[in-house]
Amino acid sequence: MMATNDFLDQAEAILGPRGLTQDPDLVEPWLTDWRGRFHGAALALAQPATTAELSALVALCAQTRVPLVPQGGNSGMSGGATPDETGKSLLVSLRRMNAIRALDRDAMQITAEAGVILENLHHIAELQGLRFPLSLGGKGSATIGGLISTNAGGTQVIRHGSMRALVLGLEAVLADGQILDALVPLKKDNRGFDLKQLLIGSEGTLGIVTAATLRLVPAVADRAVIWAGVPSIAAARGLLLHCQAAEGDALEGFEVMPQHCLDNVVAFLPDARPPLAGQNAWHALIELTASDSDADSLRDRAEAMIADAFEKGLLADAVFASSETQAEKFWQLREIVAPAERAIGPAVQHDVSVPVADMPAFVEAAVPAIEARFPGTRAVAFGHLGDGNIHFHVLAPPGVDGPTWQQGEGKAISREVHDIVVQWRGSISAEHGIGQLKRDELARLGDPVALELMRRVKDALDPHGLLNPGKLI
Amino acid sequence: MMATNDFLDQAEAILGPRGLTQDPDLVEPWLTDWRGRFHGAALALAQPATTAELSALVALCAQTRVPLVPQGGNSGMSGGATPDETGKSLLVSLRRMNAIRALDRDAMQITAEAGVILENLHHIAELQGLRFPLSLGGKGSATIGGLISTNAGGTQVIRHGSMRALVLGLEAVLADGQILDALVPLKKDNRGFDLKQLLIGSEGTLGIVTAATLRLVPAVADRAVIWAGVPSIAAARGLLLHCQAAEGDALEGFEVMPQHCLDNVVAFLPDARPPLAGQNAWHALIELTASDSDADSLRDRAEAMIADAFEKGLLADAVFASSETQAEKFWQLREIVAPAERAIGPAVQHDVSVPVADMPAFVEAAVPAIEARFPGTRAVAFGHLGDGNIHFHVLAPPGVDGPTWQQGEGKAISREVHDIVVQWRGSISAEHGIGQLKRDELARLGDPVALELMRRVKDALDPHGLLNPGKLI
Repeated sequence: MMATNDFLDQAEAILGPRGLTQDPDLVEPWLTDWRGRFHGAALALAQPATTAELSALVALCAQTRVPLVPQGGNSGMSGGATPDETGKSLLVSLRRMNAIRALDRDAMQITAEAGVILENLHHIAELQGLRFPLSLGGKGSATIGGLISTNAGGTQVIRHGSMRALVLGLEAVLADGQILDALVPLKKDNRGFDLKQLLIGSEGTLGIVTAATLRLVPAVADRAVIWAGVPSIAAARGLLLHCQAAEGDALEGFEVMPQHCLDNVVAFLPDARPPLAGQNAWHALIELTASDSDADSLRDRAEAMIADAFEKGLLADAVFASSETQAEKFWQLREIVAPAERAIGPAVQHDVSVPVADMPAFVEAAVPAIEARFPGTRAVAFGHLGDGNIHFHVLAPPGVDGPTWQQGEGKAISREVHDIVVQWRGSISAEHGIGQLKRDELARLGDPVALELMRRVKDALDPHGLLNPGKLI
Repeated sequence: MMATNDFLDQAEAILGPRGLTQDPDLVEPWLTDWRGRFHGAALALAQPATTAELSALVALCAQTRVPLVPQGGNSGMSGGATPDETGKSLLVSLRRMNAIRALDRDAMQITAEAGVILENLHHIAELQGLRFPLSLGGKGSATIGGLISTNAGGTQVIRHGSMRALVLGLEAVLADGQILDALVPLKKDNRGFDLKQLLIGSEGTLGIVTAATLRLVPAVADRAVIWAGVPSIAAARGLLLHCQAAEGDALEGFEVMPQHCLDNVVAFLPDARPPLAGQNAWHALIELTASDSDADSLRDRAEAMIADAFEKGLLADAVFASSETQAEKFWQLREIVAPAERAIGPAVQHDVSVPVADMPAFVEAAVPAIEARFPGTRAVAFGHLGDGNIHFHVLAPPGVDGPTWQQGEGKAISREVHDIVVQWRGSISAEHGIGQLKRDELARLGDPVALELMRRVKDALDPHGLLNPGKLI
């Protein structure tokens, strides 16, 4: 390995003075993940402006065996973009690469560089009467590259799929600095292994995504947003099946939460009101959308769908958002669940999935099992029932010291939750990825055959282990 | 390598007497691909009955370094399931593994073994009021395993995607005999690399697919089938965009062919009649489907869509199929294009894709270029415009000897067609795969970076090169 100063000189020669810094004031903010769980150190912060610059930089790193940690908006949930504490890695921010390279309105496709921020992509699509149908809480900071590398999800997956389904083409820099150019959006291409899908969700361990061609969809011309009360999560699943059968092509969201989640939100948010008058064991937030402006038709169909559900005894109560403002308020109740919970006290969070059909039984088994095993805790399940993906949070007993509890009982709880998930043939990471947060749990619980395959692929594509070391596997 | 007889004895001990044969009468029919282009030899024909049997067999092959050639219905288009001529490979048929392991009607999922024939899967889904939305000419012989290994397409890809989009879970035997069990259908799962997608479309070179959990969709309750005449393929693309904007969620097929294709079909098929009275440079076959039985609604919407297209000058003439029988006749005209062409004389076929937006310009450039370069030939483009996937066939000059022409000028034509496709940033295999037919062309024209990545993945997963040797890469 060459001397650090020589390396930095060469890196600066590639990137220019704007592209490389060791200034602690500039580097430090990016060394901690946004949940504040992981803190690392870095040799420097590299900010390439072009794919060619990144390619030359990675080739230099390969030659000199300097590890790289790619980073987008630094809003990941699993510490996947935070370097380790050795300070030997180069932190590589893709944020300067934020150009829109192409937009084809007819084909409904956009080619965006990795550093484009999700919210900006939304605005650019809107200006063309289109939309990019993936959104999540961190949209103001999350970048396209990060969203692809983590195969991000959100609340619209039920209709449009996760990032994996929205990437039509990809450009990436590989471990030796070579550029894989697969940006051209071919709807059908059977020329061998799907390298694009291999890179998506690989958390920067196989290559660094530099640009992507993404699928856009028509803008929403109208939507019907419904808040429904149901007696159980099994009933919520029954209602989901009903809605899918009646309006599968239009069903864009189906989120659930238990009554006490809603109570927390209402207590937390000054002007929030529960949408329904009475109490219901579970609540479902349902959205149908239409891209044409035949507004009466969507509302009529949604009303028929709900009336039919009433007749079939599939729900206890339901109300339609009467305006866009009210629709936003319904969604705010869902989005504020996590912040409202954080205000109550410390918790450990799990992002798990099981087959959709098993989700009610899983929740009904796992919640009491955890609460019985860890007295004083409260287990909360909410989220994307339509995707079989629940955020399973366990709140600490009142009065404990948060960090101490999280490091002790919290870890035991997480192991127990993950054990139950595996018994149900589920995933310990539905949408947040593995990063460093769940790496050891994946090693403990993952299918050994799958883990060995992943290890082999990793070694084949990054033989010196320089791409995002210590993450995922 | 152990003596062949020892190997066969051990293989028979694993598979039982029904599971292994060297009888030429039984083996010979499977040694030629259905297009009759490739003929090979095999040590024996193995027909495992279970995943466990196949696992033990592959472990034996790994230990003794015996290559395996997996085969489903032997109806592939690229010779991917035909062994080479050395006779050193074991031909492994998955046809005995044809059980339906599970069917969840509510979840609209079916778990089928690799040997289930596509047409049988269609019938089983139909009995539940559901359907498997992928179909193709070889449905009476093509198996689920083969369709997955080649990422098969068909005429419904525009709405439902290719096989890649329909596989929710997968089971496969790897090169060392280990079983990868990823059958559980999780809609969201971010535990690392997508091994399932890596295996799909890998043509048996990375593992042997033994079962899959597949997505079903509601049965078609109603459809509107339209035959439209347009003045150019560019006009056909304009009509496609119009239909997608108006009825994107319902648009299930959009096929095109030039007038002389239709003329051939009408001349070939005794009772066929052209749907439209006049001549049109190009024809489009359009299908909309609905899963609810509100039949008037679909027909009304389809008529509005076409009336609107007329007003906008997007088509010259159009007719609706007035009955299911007529709808079937319209589709028959499309399906008979290839047989009708074969009756005219020898040809070389190419299955290519370019970005959908570029397809009209590609066809308008490539057809005259090929006909000018190879006097007496006739270039024909037809197929899946909605997917940017055209079957580009070049008919021999009248009077030539077929096989001689195919081996001589035919090969030069194929190289020329593929060169043009690459200039247009397209794929030389949109849906038929690489197999042995296009292996050398992929090596000649593929992106060297992608080819190197594929080679590395192949070496990592199959270090002794025993899985389907000589195919793809």
